[in-house]
Amino acid sequence: MIVDTQYVRFDSLPLDCGATLSPVDVAYETYGTLNKERTNAILILHAFSGDAHAAGLSRTDGKPGWWDNMIGPGKAFDTERYFVICSNVLGGCRGTTGPSSINPATGRPYGLSFPVITISDMVRLQKKLVDHLGIERLLAVCGGSMGGMQALEWAVAYPEMVVSAIPIATTARSSAQQIAFNEVGRQAIMADPDWNGGDYYDKQPPARGLAVARMIGHITFMSDESMRVKFGRRLRQKEEFGFDFSVDFEVESYLRYRGSQFVNRFDANSYLYLTKAMDYFDLTNGTGSLVEAFRNVRARFLVISFTSDWLYPSYQSLEIVNALRALNRDVAYCEIPSNYGHDAFLVDIAEQSEIIRGFLASTYRMVSST
Amino acid sequence: MIVDTQYVRFDSLPLDCGATLSPVDVAYETYGTLNKERTNAILILHAFSGDAHAAGLSRTDGKPGWWDNMIGPGKAFDTERYFVICSNVLGGCRGTTGPSSINPATGRPYGLSFPVITISDMVRLQKKLVDHLGIERLLAVCGGSMGGMQALEWAVAYPEMVVSAIPIATTARSSAQQIAFNEVGRQAIMADPDWNGGDYYDKQPPARGLAVARMIGHITFMSDESMRVKFGRRLRQKEEFGFDFSVDFEVESYLRYRGSQFVNRFDANSYLYLTKAMDYFDLTNGTGSLVEAFRNVRARFLVISFTSDWLYPSYQSLEIVNALRALNRDVAYCEIPSNYGHDAFLVDIAEQSEIIRGFLASTYRMVSST
Repeated sequence: MIVDTQYVRFDSLPLDCGATLSPVDVAYETYGTLNKERTNAILILHAFSGDAHAAGLSRTDGKPGWWDNMIGPGKAFDTERYFVICSNVLGGCRGTTGPSSINPATGRPYGLSFPVITISDMVRLQKKLVDHLGIERLLAVCGGSMGGMQALEWAVAYPEMVVSAIPIATTARSSAQQIAFNEVGRQAIMADPDWNGGDYYDKQPPARGLAVARMIGHITFMSDESMRVKFGRRLRQKEEFGFDFSVDFEVESYLRYRGSQFVNRFDANSYLYLTKAMDYFDLTNGTGSLVEAFRNVRARFLVISFTSDWLYPSYQSLEIVNALRALNRDVAYCEIPSNYGHDAFLVDIAEQSEIIRGFLASTYRMVSST
Repeated sequence: MIVDTQYVRFDSLPLDCGATLSPVDVAYETYGTLNKERTNAILILHAFSGDAHAAGLSRTDGKPGWWDNMIGPGKAFDTERYFVICSNVLGGCRGTTGPSSINPATGRPYGLSFPVITISDMVRLQKKLVDHLGIERLLAVCGGSMGGMQALEWAVAYPEMVVSAIPIATTARSSAQQIAFNEVGRQAIMADPDWNGGDYYDKQPPARGLAVARMIGHITFMSDESMRVKFGRRLRQKEEFGFDFSVDFEVESYLRYRGSQFVNRFDANSYLYLTKAMDYFDLTNGTGSLVEAFRNVRARFLVISFTSDWLYPSYQSLEIVNALRALNRDVAYCEIPSNYGHDAFLVDIAEQSEIIRGFLASTYRMVSST
């Protein structure tokens, strides 16, 4: 399945901070075919470092999408039955307008003149895309981590449009620990002199700071157990083992590699804006009451978490489930046993696939029979 | 209790890496009085960022020691009964020879010409200090975290000298996750241009990199729960709340403050050397067999861990306990309920105090009756 990323431009987007972005480009991909009743559309929402290329092989570089093991013919999001959409988020750096985009007022990249954005702003832009595609209701909105925040926001902001929501490995509000890890990543970037107040697009980007931020991220995405299985205390092959500050352990080599690779595909300012959007995310808007937040929600829910995910622990999913149950909403909750930590929603997909497949099938039957 | 830090110089210290350091200074403090039988000496071993000033008020700056709530008259380490010693570790930056010390060969600070050191090297230097003080047997060796590694190493390296060992919140070998967090801290420091290959002692130190490294550390020392209790999603007082990259949340403010404070009291190169020593630490020497490692140990053990410590989880303490039990050694294990994470051994001391008090009393009775 060779896929092309598509692009659409919208005139303007009002933001939570009061500013208006104009124009706004959105990069998106679609897989499968929209049925004539337009009842089989599913919106996939990517996590922090994802992009619009969720499935198939990219025509430009031949690479598979980030959730290719979940989306395609016969897969959990079966493209022979469903029309699947994925777009790069607002503030990103993979085709949708973000801090690396040209500010039409200056003819130069926005950098830190890009307005601060929220999860709600991202969803407001996705709504424009869905409208543009002529879809009035989404069979499902689904995403993991930051994508799960967007799925929750969709169900709350556009209750009439969302038939079902599948938030995975996520939270209704970022915890102090989650904010803390994001803040350290931001500080690592801003500590890099090459960051230069966010103005580096015609110069050397803050590669070292961004690599450190990404390394922190990778540790939090894995579990103690998955790191032990993958690396243990295995030493790197060296001519001769000696005590020094070169790479000794496999885990060091892996982190350095992943950190340095990230720099090639991600913008440091996007790192700042997207993590801040996650930190601000609080579905209760500070009231503390998730029940109030969900009062107008009409979607049915499938909430998924993973046993070894310590970054987005299961108790955060249970808060969502309990609030929905207090409102007597249709909600299923699965805590999937996995050693893969937060990464599980991307890699440990056997059980997740079966659960989502069944949930989508029953939701689709429900929609088709009404 | 006003205390003075004391200093002693040793001619030389052979190291695991093959090099010999010469001379080597040790900063240490003592509290209480050595009895005439010399049977009441306890060696306290500090954690990564600790120093020789474990108890009392420093004569120079009036500050209390890092374990002042545990050491003193009537406290867990009762200085009316015991003679308590604490020294700054080899490689540190608080009086004992480390990378910031003057290399006599060049007349300039060692920097990265300081040899790479191990936990075993630290203990070999402490042995010199204990010999210097005229003590043949230690009633107890006790420390948390990196201090716990030293306590274990003492019991293994000098079985005849150690009557009892109290390793707290520690491990017999660093896990992949522990190595990974240390490596990210090192990378943050080395990414700072001011680090300058470790040669910064007459210039601006790598303050930003060291602050980022310390911020990562602080997150791992706390628990998800203790961060929620301490910070939650509380916002900093601002004139007017707005979306931007200034400090929004209390937890951000705390981390930035602690990160920047650390720079005033810690040397970035010591950060590199001490974390590397922890990473190398593997009591099994790669054989994987803790039972073999402990075969010659004669000490009785009290092993302590804390329920919410996810950096040094209880299963690592249990590995120690199980290996000792397989050898039919005298070992008590306490997993103390606490929400304070890895920091618990420093702050949540009520139950820890009672357990240690009882263990020391019975050990002392044992020694006094033979």
